[in-house]
Amino acid sequence: MARVEPQFKQLTHSYGFDDVAIVPGDVTLNPDQTNIFFQLSSLTFTIPIVAAAMDAVVDPAFAVHFSRMGGMAVLNLEGVQSRYQNTEEVVRGIVQAPVSDVTGVLQKVYSEPIKESLVGERVRHIKEGGGICAVSMTPSNTKRLSAVAAEAGADVVVVQATVTTARHISKSYNGLVFSELRHSLPLNIPIVVGNCVTYRTALELMRNGIDAVMVGVGPGAACTTREVLGVGVPQVTATIECTAAREVYFKETGRYVALITDGGIRNGGDLCKAMACGADAVMLGSTLARTQEAPGQGYHWGMANPHPALPRGTRIKVGTTGSLEQVLFGPTVVTDGTQNLVGALKTAMGMCGAFTIRDMQKVDMVIAPSIKTEGKAYQLSGAR
Amino acid sequence: MARVEPQFKQLTHSYGFDDVAIVPGDVTLNPDQTNIFFQLSSLTFTIPIVAAAMDAVVDPAFAVHFSRMGGMAVLNLEGVQSRYQNTEEVVRGIVQAPVSDVTGVLQKVYSEPIKESLVGERVRHIKEGGGICAVSMTPSNTKRLSAVAAEAGADVVVVQATVTTARHISKSYNGLVFSELRHSLPLNIPIVVGNCVTYRTALELMRNGIDAVMVGVGPGAACTTREVLGVGVPQVTATIECTAAREVYFKETGRYVALITDGGIRNGGDLCKAMACGADAVMLGSTLARTQEAPGQGYHWGMANPHPALPRGTRIKVGTTGSLEQVLFGPTVVTDGTQNLVGALKTAMGMCGAFTIRDMQKVDMVIAPSIKTEGKAYQLSGAR
Amino acid sequence: MARVEPQFKQLTHSYGFDDVAIVPGDVTLNPDQTNIFFQLSSLTFTIPIVAAAMDAVVDPAFAVHFSRMGGMAVLNLEGVQSRYQNTEEVVRGIVQAPVSDVTGVLQKVYSEPIKESLVGERVRHIKEGGGICAVSMTPSNTKRLSAVAAEAGADVVVVQATVTTARHISKSYNGLVFSELRHSLPLNIPIVVGNCVTYRTALELMRNGIDAVMVGVGPGAACTTREVLGVGVPQVTATIECTAAREVYFKETGRYVALITDGGIRNGGDLCKAMACGADAVMLGSTLARTQEAPGQGYHWGMANPHPALPRGTRIKVGTTGSLEQVLFGPTVVTDGTQNLVGALKTAMGMCGAFTIRDMQKVDMVIAPSIKTEGKAYQLSGAR
Amino acid sequence: MARVEPQFKQLTHSYGFDDVAIVPGDVTLNPDQTNIFFQLSSLTFTIPIVAAAMDAVVDPAFAVHFSRMGGMAVLNLEGVQSRYQNTEEVVRGIVQAPVSDVTGVLQKVYSEPIKESLVGERVRHIKEGGGICAVSMTPSNTKRLSAVAAEAGADVVVVQATVTTARHISKSYNGLVFSELRHSLPLNIPIVVGNCVTYRTALELMRNGIDAVMVGVGPGAACTTREVLGVGVPQVTATIECTAAREVYFKETGRYVALITDGGIRNGGDLCKAMACGADAVMLGSTLARTQEAPGQGYHWGMANPHPALPRGTRIKVGTTGSLEQVLFGPTVVTDGTQNLVGALKTAMGMCGAFTIRDMQKVDMVIAPSIKTEGKAYQLSGAR
Repeated sequence: MARVEPQFKQLTHSYGFDDVAIVPGDVTLNPDQTNIFFQLSSLTFTIPIVAAAMDAVVDPAFAVHFSRMGGMAVLNLEGVQSRYQNTEEVVRGIVQAPVSDVTGVLQKVYSEPIKESLVGERVRHIKEGGGICAVSMTPSNTKRLSAVAAEAGADVVVVQATVTTARHISKSYNGLVFSELRHSLPLNIPIVVGNCVTYRTALELMRNGIDAVMVGVGPGAACTTREVLGVGVPQVTATIECTAAREVYFKETGRYVALITDGGIRNGGDLCKAMACGADAVMLGSTLARTQEAPGQGYHWGMANPHPALPRGTRIKVGTTGSLEQVLFGPTVVTDGTQNLVGALKTAMGMCGAFTIRDMQKVDMVIAPSIKTEGKAYQLSGAR
Repeated sequence: MARVEPQFKQLTHSYGFDDVAIVPGDVTLNPDQTNIFFQLSSLTFTIPIVAAAMDAVVDPAFAVHFSRMGGMAVLNLEGVQSRYQNTEEVVRGIVQAPVSDVTGVLQKVYSEPIKESLVGERVRHIKEGGGICAVSMTPSNTKRLSAVAAEAGADVVVVQATVTTARHISKSYNGLVFSELRHSLPLNIPIVVGNCVTYRTALELMRNGIDAVMVGVGPGAACTTREVLGVGVPQVTATIECTAAREVYFKETGRYVALITDGGIRNGGDLCKAMACGADAVMLGSTLARTQEAPGQGYHWGMANPHPALPRGTRIKVGTTGSLEQVLFGPTVVTDGTQNLVGALKTAMGMCGAFTIRDMQKVDMVIAPSIKTEGKAYQLSGAR
Repeated sequence: MARVEPQFKQLTHSYGFDDVAIVPGDVTLNPDQTNIFFQLSSLTFTIPIVAAAMDAVVDPAFAVHFSRMGGMAVLNLEGVQSRYQNTEEVVRGIVQAPVSDVTGVLQKVYSEPIKESLVGERVRHIKEGGGICAVSMTPSNTKRLSAVAAEAGADVVVVQATVTTARHISKSYNGLVFSELRHSLPLNIPIVVGNCVTYRTALELMRNGIDAVMVGVGPGAACTTREVLGVGVPQVTATIECTAAREVYFKETGRYVALITDGGIRNGGDLCKAMACGADAVMLGSTLARTQEAPGQGYHWGMANPHPALPRGTRIKVGTTGSLEQVLFGPTVVTDGTQNLVGALKTAMGMCGAFTIRDMQKVDMVIAPSIKTEGKAYQLSGAR
Repeated sequence: MARVEPQFKQLTHSYGFDDVAIVPGDVTLNPDQTNIFFQLSSLTFTIPIVAAAMDAVVDPAFAVHFSRMGGMAVLNLEGVQSRYQNTEEVVRGIVQAPVSDVTGVLQKVYSEPIKESLVGERVRHIKEGGGICAVSMTPSNTKRLSAVAAEAGADVVVVQATVTTARHISKSYNGLVFSELRHSLPLNIPIVVGNCVTYRTALELMRNGIDAVMVGVGPGAACTTREVLGVGVPQVTATIECTAAREVYFKETGRYVALITDGGIRNGGDLCKAMACGADAVMLGSTLARTQEAPGQGYHWGMANPHPALPRGTRIKVGTTGSLEQVLFGPTVVTDGTQNLVGALKTAMGMCGAFTIRDMQKVDMVIAPSIKTEGKAYQLSGAR
């Protein structure tokens, strides 16, 4: 009997935002020298921030407002906006539900069928307000809803699931073929697809002709994906993986596919780190749910697979802490990094000598022990 | 005098469930495409879940019920079932003991002698109810009790100790020789042996002809093995070690020995990770003790070495949180991963493109920083 | 199409004070054998401790007092001392502001213009009291304020920003060229520049002719740089990096540039570790803010970029715990390492067999798990 | 100018008890097969446990009692026993002091001069009670006190300081030369020296002819050495280092020098791990201070350098939890590993297939994530 060598499964290390820090550069810039635009195919946004496709964050009015500030807001076409005419009342029902009932309420709210007429109406609302209209849907609804939305004038189509791959096998519907989707939509409508976290999946998606990849599976926590399923890759590693794919694809084809890191970003520091990992933009949920303009009325809730058998979303109170303008541009008196995100990004870029986001993607980072909250008072001497 | 080179003891890294996460696959499946059967020699179970041989989890009625759901329940032949005719009263005594007395009460309860007549009675109860009857015992009682149980119709024999090896040296009894045990029992009765945590021990056990290995020493905590004795290997590493042994043994002999990861599994995420480490099934204790059908009446207790000199078990209140069906198959409104375990496994397998448990054993995992409970509210943006 | 190899961003590990411990030496000394002087160009200080250029720590009276004790106190020329004639009243306003108003109050206080006449006055106050006068300013004000201060008799010029590099690019002012600054000031006035954290930046600064480098970006926490911007390197790694630069520069030129680790030092243990990383001195803020002689009246506040758009400083209550003499030299009854810092350093040096700070810079350190506060009571047996 | 390569200080990893776990063996033994004697030169102790030379742990009566149980108790000749005739009253003063005064009280108590007459009296008390008499002192008092104690009949001399090396340089007294000490004492009196934590220091001490080395600098916490001074090496790494030295020295000379791990041992798990690192015995403080027989009356205090300038000891309430017999041999109803230490060691040795401590020193260990106390209730399924 020949001896067989044992093979032990190898585990590689992965990192989240709390595990890393950005290393200042050899050259510094004044923040006003930096430029932070975000290019998505032929569309240019002046700030690299995307508002998450969640009912507590984006409704048509918010989308118009957010567009004017320079960012891209994504309207979820499978949320309350396309299921109900009067969404305010529905949201109020979610917000006011007792804690013990909230999962049941969410399950009920999201079981109401989607109406195509409402899809068109919401898109037109945003366009008429002068906004850029980005809409999101899950793969199984993409063919139907993307066509309706494009017809109504949508500017960007976002296809998003917990995990997205170029090949999905299903009994219940034909898997969405992204290369076909690309052909079915006008070329001036960028297609954004997510979420993924690995080099190979990102590269394969890019090779299907899509225009941007969303990065992130289970990085947060109100999304209990990691507890329930054990699946997830922390955002620093996930973004670094997908960045490697973008660069390979860019060298191979000359086509630049944008990366949007989605999930787990709590403050300016996290946002800056996402860029330092290679992101072109970030998607924010709870940070924006806390603005006065958000439809969530101080609450936020996960919409993940709200089917009766395996709920993974929950509702949390986030409070309302300031205006959208303060959160994005300041001025602010809070010192925890949740406001003036644009100022924070430009300041960090200055410290790193990065003129553009493209420069910022190349700065050094270190694995650093977490900042402990306790004992902060004793660590003041470096403050300046 | 020749110079002697110093040798420093080398320590390798080991990992538990909280330290790792599963990486999604390059292909995804709809969960209904997946198949999660668990094969133990000639027995096929439709779900890869084993109910722990503990008095708060499995009594004959529970075993029948659990069999119908597709899993394997193990009745402990050294627990109250084989010591007392009227077990309900005994359990009530444990459950109602004041905290300060509970270790003493446990010590007393488990010093009552085992009655062979009760062993036969319990086995027949399960068989007559239509259940698959798996019974467990410690090595020193195995010859005697396995014969009685087999005679009464038991389907599976589980030999279990805190640490099990193929060679045990003792003054007080002749060590159990597993190859002899294999010959003494009918071939259609699979022998499951545990617990072990290393490549070498697992391989040696397999070479003694047993049919499944249980993996885990001191992974949990109410089992205070690690505090009291310092001995223990975290479950991810332990399962990976034993998996390497199974694959080597399979390549050498063509015989597939199943691995059952036992201990430390708190939710669907842990269950999925155990499979991703190479397990064929998992053994659950406290998760099942919380079902309405469990005999523990909302409590759970360790039965480890309940001798007067070194108690290592303790009693904890786990509460009763739902029916067995909910815990296994949902529907559920809890979002912490403790219910709908089968749904969770199938969903995770879908995300990983795994049609079978055998595929799931090969997915990638990363070492990932623990999810911190605090601050969860600020990490919502990835929820979908 | 040629295959392109993916490049994944590499992350190196970095460490802070809590992550390391000093290894005792092969030889031990009695503490009274050790010598801890700090040499800054032609100036010799008998203790290697620098009082931070913060309004809660150093005013002219404190500077005089601290000089007599053997250390170097730095007066911030952009703080209240150069903006207000009557600083006590202004400090009282900061100290007494309600928590909700404090950021606003700080923003207002530090928007009052700097008066050159006050700069001269403060410098003369210190010199007339017999103190060594070190003054600090930010790069954009350096040309103007350093000239005024030098004229008035200042002994040391400290140029300090959150991140300092040899090349800063700005639209609004010509970047400060350190080699020109060196030529514009009398040679007997050492120039101290900071803060930096990397080998390359430190080396480049040294090559511009400066006399000491301050080490540290975002190591503390009341300075919320790392949360807001994500930028920062823990102090152990930062000091080790800059030490490597100092040694290279020393070997290349024979000129020894001192390193002052600034920030994050909470107790004698941290101070000793900074030295063991290669520092020649440490800058202390909150530790000194807690002395009876400090102007902060039991409070401390960050002065970082107090502009309306992105505040990064905050005010904390530190309390008043003893005299400056006790903090530096004891005697003390506190056992947490915040008093008798000089005694601690000399004792640690004795344990390491280090006669001088230069020797102490070479001792071994290990990466050690953090001391957990909880459970301390159970770890007493090593106490002696 | 030649290019100089930068040298960055290298940091190696170190580990404490909480960071590691023992791997079970390929063979198992019944605990009654194991033998745990501890050999110190010509003295044989039946259990490998040394009672710490601290006033709250060992007085002459305790030493007699502990000897009868098979262990070695060390009487501190610089504690209250050699300073006061009536020690009970002095201890009561320490125990009853208000928290705010305790450091001052300790400083005062330990400034009373040592009386040689009391040294003799205490030694004779132990010998007349039939105990083995081990006495400890610091290096500067060793010549004087060891002679007095040997004269009175002491069996073992322990020389102990926070850090001990073979070469100590001092202005105030001639460094203790251990090779001279060896010659000055009868050969049948073993000399135990500590504390040290590195390979080189341990080896050098052994080469001076001493009989045992105590391992540990700053491992605990009530001993605030690491906070105050930054100096310390965690016990697992320290013991592994000194073990390497013992083995080298043994191979070179054939002489076996015992290792006693001192400090940081809180329960049976830690004790077993110390042995698995290579220790021959462990010194216990707070664990024994909690026995009914201990002189500390439910309190414990550090005696480290109780001089007025740099106190490093503190007083903690440990409570009285059981008899010495229970702590050493059980029976016990506590499940946290603080009682029946001997039973725990023998059980762990059985799991590892170790017949003797010498075998136990060679078992495998892994670096394992800490057991988190929280969530224990959910990790019960492995209990057996």
